[in-house]
Amino acid sequence: WADFRAQARLPGGPSSPRLAAVKARILPFLPLAAAFACGAPAHRSACPTTDRALPAANSNGPAAPGIDVAALERLAATRSYSLGTPRPVRITPDGNVLFLRTTRRSFNAELFEFDARTGSTSKLASADELLEGAGLELSAAEKALRERTRTALRGIVSVEVSDDGRTVLLPLGEKVFAVDRATKGHRQVDVGTGYPDAVSLSPDGKFLAFVRDQDLWVVGTDGKGLRRVTKHERDSVTYGMAEFVAQEELDRTRGHWWSPDGRTLLIERADEATVDTLHVSNPAAPERDGTAFRYPRAGRPNADVSLHLVPRSGGRSVPVAWDRAAFPYVRAVDWPEHAPPTVVVMNRAQTKATVLAVDPKSGETTTLVTEEDPAWVNVPEGPLWFADGSRFLWASERTGVWQLEVHAADGALLRSVALPGFDGGIQIDQDAGEVWLSGSEDPTSEHVARLASLDASPAWVTTDAGVHSVVVGRHGGTRVQIDAAPNGARTWTVVDRSGKALGTLESVAEAPPNLPNVTLETVTLDTRTHHTAIVRPRDFDPSRKYPVVLQVYAGPGVTTVWNTPRAYFKDQILADTGFIVVRSDGRGTPRRGRDWERVTSRDLITVPIADQVAALEALGARHPELDLDRVGVMGWSFGGYFSAMAALRRPDRFKAAIAGAPVTDWRFYDTAYTERYMGLPEENTAAYDATSAVVHAGELTRPLLLVHGFTDDNVYVVNTLALEDALFRAHKDYELITLGSTHMTVDPQMEAALLTREVHFFRKHLGVPASTAISAPAP
Amino acid sequence: WADFRAQARLPGGPSSPRLAAVKARILPFLPLAAAFACGAPAHRSACPTTDRALPAANSNGPAAPGIDVAALERLAATRSYSLGTPRPVRITPDGNVLFLRTTRRSFNAELFEFDARTGSTSKLASADELLEGAGLELSAAEKALRERTRTALRGIVSVEVSDDGRTVLLPLGEKVFAVDRATKGHRQVDVGTGYPDAVSLSPDGKFLAFVRDQDLWVVGTDGKGLRRVTKHERDSVTYGMAEFVAQEELDRTRGHWWSPDGRTLLIERADEATVDTLHVSNPAAPERDGTAFRYPRAGRPNADVSLHLVPRSGGRSVPVAWDRAAFPYVRAVDWPEHAPPTVVVMNRAQTKATVLAVDPKSGETTTLVTEEDPAWVNVPEGPLWFADGSRFLWASERTGVWQLEVHAADGALLRSVALPGFDGGIQIDQDAGEVWLSGSEDPTSEHVARLASLDASPAWVTTDAGVHSVVVGRHGGTRVQIDAAPNGARTWTVVDRSGKALGTLESVAEAPPNLPNVTLETVTLDTRTHHTAIVRPRDFDPSRKYPVVLQVYAGPGVTTVWNTPRAYFKDQILADTGFIVVRSDGRGTPRRGRDWERVTSRDLITVPIADQVAALEALGARHPELDLDRVGVMGWSFGGYFSAMAALRRPDRFKAAIAGAPVTDWRFYDTAYTERYMGLPEENTAAYDATSAVVHAGELTRPLLLVHGFTDDNVYVVNTLALEDALFRAHKDYELITLGSTHMTVDPQMEAALLTREVHFFRKHLGVPASTAISAPAP
Repeated sequence: WADFRAQARLPGGPSSPRLAAVKARILPFLPLAAAFACGAPAHRSACPTTDRALPAANSNGPAAPGIDVAALERLAATRSYSLGTPRPVRITPDGNVLFLRTTRRSFNAELFEFDARTGSTSKLASADELLEGAGLELSAAEKALRERTRTALRGIVSVEVSDDGRTVLLPLGEKVFAVDRATKGHRQVDVGTGYPDAVSLSPDGKFLAFVRDQDLWVVGTDGKGLRRVTKHERDSVTYGMAEFVAQEELDRTRGHWWSPDGRTLLIERADEATVDTLHVSNPAAPERDGTAFRYPRAGRPNADVSLHLVPRSGGRSVPVAWDRAAFPYVRAVDWPEHAPPTVVVMNRAQTKATVLAVDPKSGETTTLVTEEDPAWVNVPEGPLWFADGSRFLWASERTGVWQLEVHAADGALLRSVALPGFDGGIQIDQDAGEVWLSGSEDPTSEHVARLASLDASPAWVTTDAGVHSVVVGRHGGTRVQIDAAPNGARTWTVVDRSGKALGTLESVAEAPPNLPNVTLETVTLDTRTHHTAIVRPRDFDPSRKYPVVLQVYAGPGVTTVWNTPRAYFKDQILADTGFIVVRSDGRGTPRRGRDWERVTSRDLITVPIADQVAALEALGARHPELDLDRVGVMGWSFGGYFSAMAALRRPDRFKAAIAGAPVTDWRFYDTAYTERYMGLPEENTAAYDATSAVVHAGELTRPLLLVHGFTDDNVYVVNTLALEDALFRAHKDYELITLGSTHMTVDPQMEAALLTREVHFFRKHLGVPASTAISAPAP
Repeated sequence: WADFRAQARLPGGPSSPRLAAVKARILPFLPLAAAFACGAPAHRSACPTTDRALPAANSNGPAAPGIDVAALERLAATRSYSLGTPRPVRITPDGNVLFLRTTRRSFNAELFEFDARTGSTSKLASADELLEGAGLELSAAEKALRERTRTALRGIVSVEVSDDGRTVLLPLGEKVFAVDRATKGHRQVDVGTGYPDAVSLSPDGKFLAFVRDQDLWVVGTDGKGLRRVTKHERDSVTYGMAEFVAQEELDRTRGHWWSPDGRTLLIERADEATVDTLHVSNPAAPERDGTAFRYPRAGRPNADVSLHLVPRSGGRSVPVAWDRAAFPYVRAVDWPEHAPPTVVVMNRAQTKATVLAVDPKSGETTTLVTEEDPAWVNVPEGPLWFADGSRFLWASERTGVWQLEVHAADGALLRSVALPGFDGGIQIDQDAGEVWLSGSEDPTSEHVARLASLDASPAWVTTDAGVHSVVVGRHGGTRVQIDAAPNGARTWTVVDRSGKALGTLESVAEAPPNLPNVTLETVTLDTRTHHTAIVRPRDFDPSRKYPVVLQVYAGPGVTTVWNTPRAYFKDQILADTGFIVVRSDGRGTPRRGRDWERVTSRDLITVPIADQVAALEALGARHPELDLDRVGVMGWSFGGYFSAMAALRRPDRFKAAIAGAPVTDWRFYDTAYTERYMGLPEENTAAYDATSAVVHAGELTRPLLLVHGFTDDNVYVVNTLALEDALFRAHKDYELITLGSTHMTVDPQMEAALLTREVHFFRKHLGVPASTAISAPAP
């Protein structure tokens, strides 16, 4: 589920790095396109180029317009017009901005530097230049990490910068390059033979660490002193890498951390001996062997994770001591400059989180903060220390409303500031002592707030509707203000501490020929306000009734209604084939406070379906052009699960459903996500059964299209195949599309084909826009 | 493709062993059911028991009757009412008959003995008794062999008998039992640790050989002297087993042969180093790792096969010398009592076959017979030697019509007798010097012929229409006459040499409540006579027009129209849901002479489609109740390929198609079958392209339902998935059902579900029986 959290990408295009803590979400209602060979004229013959005019599926109505395949291909080729936008990765101590950018139809990211003094931008490095045209092969671990973080970019994707900003480390496949930012000169670092995974740079820029053959290695950036720092005791043990659930569900991608002086490393050891092995294979490519993954399903053993203090030069390793049996999850680790190593651990039920300070000599720990919630604890950020080590910030929901807590170094609570609408991002301008936050009281917008000092109150810096974020330099005095407006405009402005614009990070992204025709509205359900989005066809005829497609996610951690038209490109293409496309956000989703989100504890589907249906009905009562007798539902991942369950539970409302890469029984999904919401299967059998599409397959009465990629190592294809088997044995019809892809489809031809098939399916079962005198097809 | 040749089973139920050379075919138009847990009342709750009444799919016509799920379950539980029939495996020198038989709804075969003197039958052994209730685990090689030979039985399936008839060897999983037939006492033979594959008994009954860990082992039947006789040089080498294509395509399941004196073994060595490895996995069971198979696709390297003479007690091994580069295939091997070891080898194109005599000392070979055909050579039988070693029989098509050739020991041709309608079975009553043959001039029947002596002419022993076969004792003077009549009656009669009945092998098979309502007719296409079968619904109403389903195979080696109602049980269940089901046999199928069969060389689909369509149209002209505007086509394996191609090529005739486990491009199928008919891919690219459903996927305009089992290690699921991908990318709709099964489905619940889905599909696209005044649904 990391797709909805780990990537620092806002709907509609603006993006900023993970470290900048902009915590918005990708919405994979449809699989995302990556490389798009069809964009190159030389490859066009292999691509679907015909804008096929579809026959009308319902002779009662007029022929609906065909699918605009060209528009879909354009969307895929540009990754929803986001390719070519700048992606800030670091602000250096001199205030310059390092950012990644591709060209308008390429996934090959290059590294640029914005000069804060001159306002000019120059290219610092590109993979093509560094590798001199040689290919880039990724290790299995690197591919898995990119899958976990939903990284579709190629070229330069990882940028490590020394504290002084002088040395920039660029891992590229098996090679690692060091760039001297002052001279712009680069050299390859000799890291020995074999793929270096999880490359990190010491704060002083003199050493790098990486993982190879399941151990952590260190070498000087001058290529000298290569040393294996750990020695894994058996095949199931890996040092230095975040284990699967940390990457996928705990928002932690790192597995080792440098001490500020670079003399010690805090290293994760993960022993997967008791974790089940699942096999992923693509039967459409039988020449290739499958891949074995250690995957902990709900209720099954997790990796045994511990932390160890290890001298860089070898020598005695010291384990970090805490009650690992009670708190097996390591959510976050930090080793600040003038503070002890700090670790956030959680119990398996995720109802308790504890912030620990580690004695770097003895490994003993003391508790700084504890956090509890009877449903589950959200930990959007680890503690953020001020540079002098005197205080740290901690975001807490302990009062039921987000609080920014200021703690003394010993953990004592100094201050607590309410942050309604807080959304998880905290950054500190260490030189100025300013704190920057992300959030919004209107959940369809994202805003930036500032605390001028630790004694100040937070103030919203952005106020206009839209999606706003900021990347703040810890040092350097500049920041990047990223704004996406409801009119579709996007800007990346570099400003100084006073707010004066120093220039812009230029976007070279392709401009869409037109923006989606989206209307945001609220509906009141009981006493609750729900946000909805409606996309009508561009040739909308108010005298007709339209079949409706509910684009849905409706699971934890994700909202889908955003106040930027750039979030709705695919909805518009679908709408233009003769549907009105609706989204809404109900209870169980974030950004509406503790209780709104926690209502789905132990039942992830009943309230979400009720809220989606109620919002739909409220909109239908308001807009007669929505034909609520002809509603289809579609979604991917949790949204696929929702779609399948909606078809099973509410056939009165949903006449057809498309379930993409769905979970079909929570017993198939991983521990850290599933148990957080559903508890342990052995203690909650009835809840797991009640929410299982497999268990209830025999109740299906509506057309259901299942779509799943064979090599999905997150939501395993067994989910769809188990549901298929149950439906098949219950003598139920269904449709099935298998893809040779992972959880996120990255083949634009497949994407175009999938939307085509989805339109065929909905048109077959929902019909086409009809004059109000003509009744809907028989259900 | 061994399913249609290797199993000695006649359509309609009677069966006789492979050694008896009755070469009829199973027709897997629908997957065959094996174990049927639903048959046991205790398990019934887990099974589909509801005879669901389907809603009418077309309001223009009357509601069609629902699928008779109970009848389908009964059919699966009884394996088309064949479980419980006797299966003769050996006639002993005292004239008694050993036969296998299960109970009426069990797959657990037990061994019985019919006493020729008393006419009584007694049980000789059962797996339950021998294993004392312990389970029976099969090795991967054993499972593969059973898959290759389409063996669905469990319990006792392999019976080795010494020449004197006294010792009966029964391999049961990891254990081997020896039964003394005189005393009926049994004991377990200590064969050491590990699974003994391919167990064989020496002619004198004193030793057994088997394969373990890729080598051949020998041990005394007293459990003494266990010895590894070969030593495989590397991982890719196996001794003593028939390689994949021999088992699947060359009708040879053995990989080692005893000398008559039991002192030497002739052993196959197969090195698969250059054979591609394909992976078979079931993504619906991700806990299990996939299986790697060495599978030679058309145009790719085969296993390197050689033969070696090896002393039983170890010592110097002597290779058999022949031009292996020119003749890489070993089709058949025999080591007769008073004649040299005899080997039939073939060139890769299978246009030449050579019978070689082997010098058992030097390994040198001399050519006894050569056979050539510009298309391909059929070798239905290896040479059959007379007991005194003076002469051997050889079946040849060299004149264009089957001949039985009598050769002297040096290969000289002594006599050639024309055998029109010969179907591949030859047996010799060595004591009487009689030769028994199988065949028929009417291809819908199977008959038994006899040559009273080598100077006599063949005379048909059976003359009534139906399916007749015989199992003849080499010694002992008795035989089993097996008869299936057009009225559905089946008998297994033991007769003496004079034809006097000594008794019957009792069948305990369940009687079907009623027999299929089948009519056999011929049609004349150009000047050719084609045989057809028509199954009408039991409630057939001549005033209505019925949608038609063509049940098709239409590939090499198999005919589908047989003069026994027992071949049509599933057609009847399908017909009873509102269709008329038609079969016909066209050119490219066997039993009609060399030219009729060879017309499909280099193009397996154009003539078969033309003939099927022409036969259908001829029947339609004759029978107005066949609505030829509403024809569906369905088949499995080659029949699945035919269905997909028929939908692509003749959308004017076929309005919907179901393709089960289809080949979709001949480049995916194995060397020995594919190249025999299509030649090498690199030399026949145009032919492979023209006959590929994948290449032509973009031309699909008809509904197509694809069905395939993930663990099919014969027709790999990549066939269906590659077609799916091509259809998907071409924006074509299709339906897909994946099964967790091999090439032959053995789960009766799945079988019932599959037929249900097939009926849904055809009813949706073809409609229901309609009065002649009502037109068909729009195509």
